[in-house]
Amino acid sequence: MNRQTLIEKVADIFVSQMPYNQFLGIAVQTLNPERAAITLPWQDQFIGNPTQRILHGGVISAVLDNVGGMLAAASIIDKLPDSELHTVPSKLATLGTIDIRTDFLRPGRGTLFTATAHLIRSGNKVCVCRMELHNEEGTQIAFGTATYLVG
Amino acid sequence: MNRQTLIEKVADIFVSQMPYNQFLGIAVQTLNPERAAITLPWQDQFIGNPTQRILHGGVISAVLDNVGGMLAAASIIDKLPDSELHTVPSKLATLGTIDIRTDFLRPGRGTLFTATAHLIRSGNKVCVCRMELHNEEGTQIAFGTATYLVG
Amino acid sequence: MNRQTLIEKVADIFVSQMPYNQFLGIAVQTLNPERAAITLPWQDQFIGNPTQRILHGGVISAVLDNVGGMLAAASIIDKLPDSELHTVPSKLATLGTIDIRTDFLRPGRGTLFTATAHLIRSGNKVCVCRMELHNEEGTQIAFGTATYLVG
Amino acid sequence: MNRQTLIEKVADIFVSQMPYNQFLGIAVQTLNPERAAITLPWQDQFIGNPTQRILHGGVISAVLDNVGGMLAAASIIDKLPDSELHTVPSKLATLGTIDIRTDFLRPGRGTLFTATAHLIRSGNKVCVCRMELHNEEGTQIAFGTATYLVG
Repeated sequence: MNRQTLIEKVADIFVSQMPYNQFLGIAVQTLNPERAAITLPWQDQFIGNPTQRILHGGVISAVLDNVGGMLAAASIIDKLPDSELHTVPSKLATLGTIDIRTDFLRPGRGTLFTATAHLIRSGNKVCVCRMELHNEEGTQIAFGTATYLVG
Repeated sequence: MNRQTLIEKVADIFVSQMPYNQFLGIAVQTLNPERAAITLPWQDQFIGNPTQRILHGGVISAVLDNVGGMLAAASIIDKLPDSELHTVPSKLATLGTIDIRTDFLRPGRGTLFTATAHLIRSGNKVCVCRMELHNEEGTQIAFGTATYLVG
Repeated sequence: MNRQTLIEKVADIFVSQMPYNQFLGIAVQTLNPERAAITLPWQDQFIGNPTQRILHGGVISAVLDNVGGMLAAASIIDKLPDSELHTVPSKLATLGTIDIRTDFLRPGRGTLFTATAHLIRSGNKVCVCRMELHNEEGTQIAFGTATYLVG
Repeated sequence: MNRQTLIEKVADIFVSQMPYNQFLGIAVQTLNPERAAITLPWQDQFIGNPTQRILHGGVISAVLDNVGGMLAAASIIDKLPDSELHTVPSKLATLGTIDIRTDFLRPGRGTLFTATAHLIRSGNKVCVCRMELHNEEGTQIAFGTATYLVG
């Protein structure tokens, strides 16, 4: 498989082969080694407040973690020489989030949310991403920083 | 209502009146101004990995955020003088997580998870909690730190 | 005093009236309610490594905390109505960092470092800033996120 | 060199061979693979406030980062088999802080501060420590969590 196909496969794994992501209903909008974007359509069961229709913080952290993890995976694939592309499955198997910080900036109100990730450190052992969550009106709801184990 | 009844009401709000927490299926084990503990029984839809039966990081962050938020609420109630206990509902309405850091220490494997919270800063405006997640064998799975707006 | 003079006074307090900042030798390049930038010239006593001439992580965290705190102060001043500008000194006296996360992206090598801050949450009680540190060649060395108590 | 001697050498490197730590004036109280403790005597140049004699946040982050880093180093040495102890210098050369979160709990007032670290994740590639800072009266001033690259 070439790099582009492998990256598309990563997107598919996140969306279709992880039960919790299937529950969330995320879809991948963009995934390349520079940038990842996923969407999350509103569901009533995401509500994390007794009186307001806003996202639970845990849903926000989950989406930010997903979009950053996807970008970390694309970055792994991008940096491998052709001769090592066959090691991608074993590399992805050990990919994991080490830590994540989420800053909740505004109430998570909206109907369609977009999470984006940007790589700020891309190493052989760890990657660091910063992520943002916006609603369909462009209001920023959350900000995140996560460190991933990639090698 | 007295303090103890108010604290029990907080526990009930978190468990029964927040749709996302109803999805998670958390139950409150302990809630007093010094300590909070909640349990999370395993569900297959929490899986966050294509090949392993382990919790998605977003589920872990959600549970840690809940247990810390519950303790922050109990702490608000505990510090109010009797004459201001009627302000609890309005105070809880503005309670919110400002930021949370989750450290994923070991794979989230187990059948019954327990999240505990401990208050490390208890102010009039912000509270800071540190939280832990263990499985039924006592293995620590995650660690968290969160800052809450309480006034 | 008008807003602009008050903001200049904040810059002066950070640079000239905080002994640790005098030790660091920071200078303010820009300070307005949208953006803050400070510079840090290299000093051998900042070295945090036995074999390499790179900044100690503590120096990096200190500079990021300063530039974010300065921006939080400018933001307080900016949001006050004219009739309350006389409360600025008491407001600044209670301004404090609640928490900070620093991501160390590349070794802190250089001769003149610039730290910049950008406000991502500007509330009546808390502000959240994200900060970056670059060297004189434009290489990004660190990234930070900090929460400040402002009211 | 045996393990104990190597760990003592690490303590000496942190205290005597890092110029910024010499400026801070830290001393090692305990260093073994389970626990690290260092002391920091007050100096007027640590002041980070125009009106109060309290530590600058950057000094606090620096001390927490040091005590965690020292423990990460001791943990590396502890896990190596005898036959690989000669690789310690090269392993320590690549030891680095990936990220750190500091929670400022109370004003940094005191004459002699003690920072302690505890390992919460000890892997072949990354270690995670949590750290605390207390003054001579036992008041907790700060809490920290840091991730270190160890392999």
